[in-house]
Amino acid sequence: MSDSFSFRLLATDGAARVGEIATAHGRVAAPAFMPVGTQAAMKAVHWRDVRASGAEIVLANTYHLMLRPGAERIAALGGLHTFSGWDGPILTDSGGFQVMSLANLRTVEEQAVTFRSHIDGATVVLSPERAIEIQRLLGADIAMQLDECIKLPAAASDIEQAMRLSLRWAERCKRAFDQRQGRALFGIVQGGDIDRLRTESARTLVDVGFHGYAIGGLAVGEPAPVMLRVIEQVMPHLPADHPRYLMGVGTPEDLLEAIRRGIDMFDCVLPTRNGRHGMAFTRFGPINLRNARHADDPRPLDAESECPAAREFARAYLHHLTRANETLGAMLLSTINLHYYQDLMRGMRTAIAQRRFEDFCAAVRQGWAAGDLPPR
Amino acid sequence: MSDSFSFRLLATDGAARVGEIATAHGRVAAPAFMPVGTQAAMKAVHWRDVRASGAEIVLANTYHLMLRPGAERIAALGGLHTFSGWDGPILTDSGGFQVMSLANLRTVEEQAVTFRSHIDGATVVLSPERAIEIQRLLGADIAMQLDECIKLPAAASDIEQAMRLSLRWAERCKRAFDQRQGRALFGIVQGGDIDRLRTESARTLVDVGFHGYAIGGLAVGEPAPVMLRVIEQVMPHLPADHPRYLMGVGTPEDLLEAIRRGIDMFDCVLPTRNGRHGMAFTRFGPINLRNARHADDPRPLDAESECPAAREFARAYLHHLTRANETLGAMLLSTINLHYYQDLMRGMRTAIAQRRFEDFCAAVRQGWAAGDLPPR
Repeated sequence: MSDSFSFRLLATDGAARVGEIATAHGRVAAPAFMPVGTQAAMKAVHWRDVRASGAEIVLANTYHLMLRPGAERIAALGGLHTFSGWDGPILTDSGGFQVMSLANLRTVEEQAVTFRSHIDGATVVLSPERAIEIQRLLGADIAMQLDECIKLPAAASDIEQAMRLSLRWAERCKRAFDQRQGRALFGIVQGGDIDRLRTESARTLVDVGFHGYAIGGLAVGEPAPVMLRVIEQVMPHLPADHPRYLMGVGTPEDLLEAIRRGIDMFDCVLPTRNGRHGMAFTRFGPINLRNARHADDPRPLDAESECPAAREFARAYLHHLTRANETLGAMLLSTINLHYYQDLMRGMRTAIAQRRFEDFCAAVRQGWAAGDLPPR
Repeated sequence: MSDSFSFRLLATDGAARVGEIATAHGRVAAPAFMPVGTQAAMKAVHWRDVRASGAEIVLANTYHLMLRPGAERIAALGGLHTFSGWDGPILTDSGGFQVMSLANLRTVEEQAVTFRSHIDGATVVLSPERAIEIQRLLGADIAMQLDECIKLPAAASDIEQAMRLSLRWAERCKRAFDQRQGRALFGIVQGGDIDRLRTESARTLVDVGFHGYAIGGLAVGEPAPVMLRVIEQVMPHLPADHPRYLMGVGTPEDLLEAIRRGIDMFDCVLPTRNGRHGMAFTRFGPINLRNARHADDPRPLDAESECPAAREFARAYLHHLTRANETLGAMLLSTINLHYYQDLMRGMRTAIAQRRFEDFCAAVRQGWAAGDLPPR
């Protein structure tokens, strides 16, 4: 265990990096994929299975937890780690993104964002200082600055205004942040799809100084090339000795492309959300278990997977569970998907360390392209 | 593993019995509680957790499985054990009960019951012979005769008519039953709440001869004293060297009272259904985790439980999961409840073997009556 937050760069292959993030709750191999435990729970997955998948850090959502059960309550119960039983590192977002996407009647002002809870309609004020306080109460190993996220496409003036507000909030978050052993604060680069705004945002944040830097405001519906261009635009302005986190991303293909460009951390609901909807991520590409072709197929999803559920259950059974709306289907497929994501990350880390990242990506893509073998 | 189905009576204490049921898929200590895996899955519980709870046999529902995914399909996939991954003994009901409670436009005739599927409206014919064939295709270790269940209260003439039809179907089921190693067929005593009909039903079934005898048509809304009176009425007519199964029962209190009267087997959805609704069965009686009094309670449900989930998670966390509709709440509480039921069964078996069953029941009831300690 490290006394304080740190990032060590261990190897590179092109722009792709392998590193190690040390936190008060343990070390995290990077590039790292963080499964999303929105309400202090992974949807339909036991914490022991999150751990068994290889995940070393998870994300929890400040917005949801501040509304229910409440940050002060979680603090009184010993913080998120004690409360949830997940004893590994936890990153909390600032609540900004979900205020924009879930809350009603929100008003963004210089001082704070005011909104109505989507649960009970209560009026809630979230300032940069309060966002930091909440994340401290939750006991986050990595806290995020409050930012204003806007949906793309948007007018350049709106993007610029939100980016500048986010920068001012970044400074206020840094001042409010009570740095203790092992706890870190990340700034968030905003600026939509406008290169000069992204550049300015990144440079200013680095001047303020954070433990790590996130790229926000992506994976909100923009085309993949836009996302990759923004990453390329931002990267040169971020210091190599700090972790870089691409928020809310993404598909397995997104992970390959973003890691190729130097991203170290990701979070995304896809593995669990798609698992609940009958979709499995595999070496053979995505497989929709709801499809009738699986109804009589005795083969497991992937006999060579490290995930027991992918080896031990027939596709016909997973198909049946999905069609019959049995919770066990969501449980097994979500677990299988978490495993696949972590296997992919592990493969990339090994490949980068051995300087064969491009070969690894080509082999992975070949597997996806070859697709799934038809049943007998 | 036994070569064929058998029941060994090992100890008695009053009318209460301890025995061992041997099946092709392993031995079962009796009295046994069978968790209900309706659609070849335990709702919100991994099979490994079903096993870890101490359950040695589970029930699956013929009605659901014949409609989806279909008995022939499951047979082609190797039977229920291979299909589901549960490798322990499985008892299947005959479908009769659910035809009455779930299907539409059902017509009961001498030859068979005809109904419309609640899933897709398809017309389905279920005869005694087909019920046996389906259970053979599923690979049930214990199959049940087809019977006609009617809701209580009902006219005596209706109860008598259903009972006599069930007896004729019992004979047809026995003729249709292809006895193979380790597979058993149980008859079902019907007759509603009318003592002379119950007596006639039991005696006739014993004359026909089955591997075990079930009491059906109870736990359908009648008062508890009626259920206990029917058990008392039936018991003297059932042979001591065959297992006795009380279908669809029940609460922990029901289990105590029925075992006290000589019942050996039970099935019920209560532990999993109530778990999904935020209710935990404990040594302190049932606890509704949705109740606001748990919101700040850091204590586990039961620090001395053999169930990890009952020891390791704070009530405040279980409360939060339940209120936030997180699937993990249903998963943990269902598992906790399966454990509690099995712990209770284990406790009763030990007490009967030591001839202190009444003392055990008194202590258990004392725990329930004392109730749960309030939070600090």
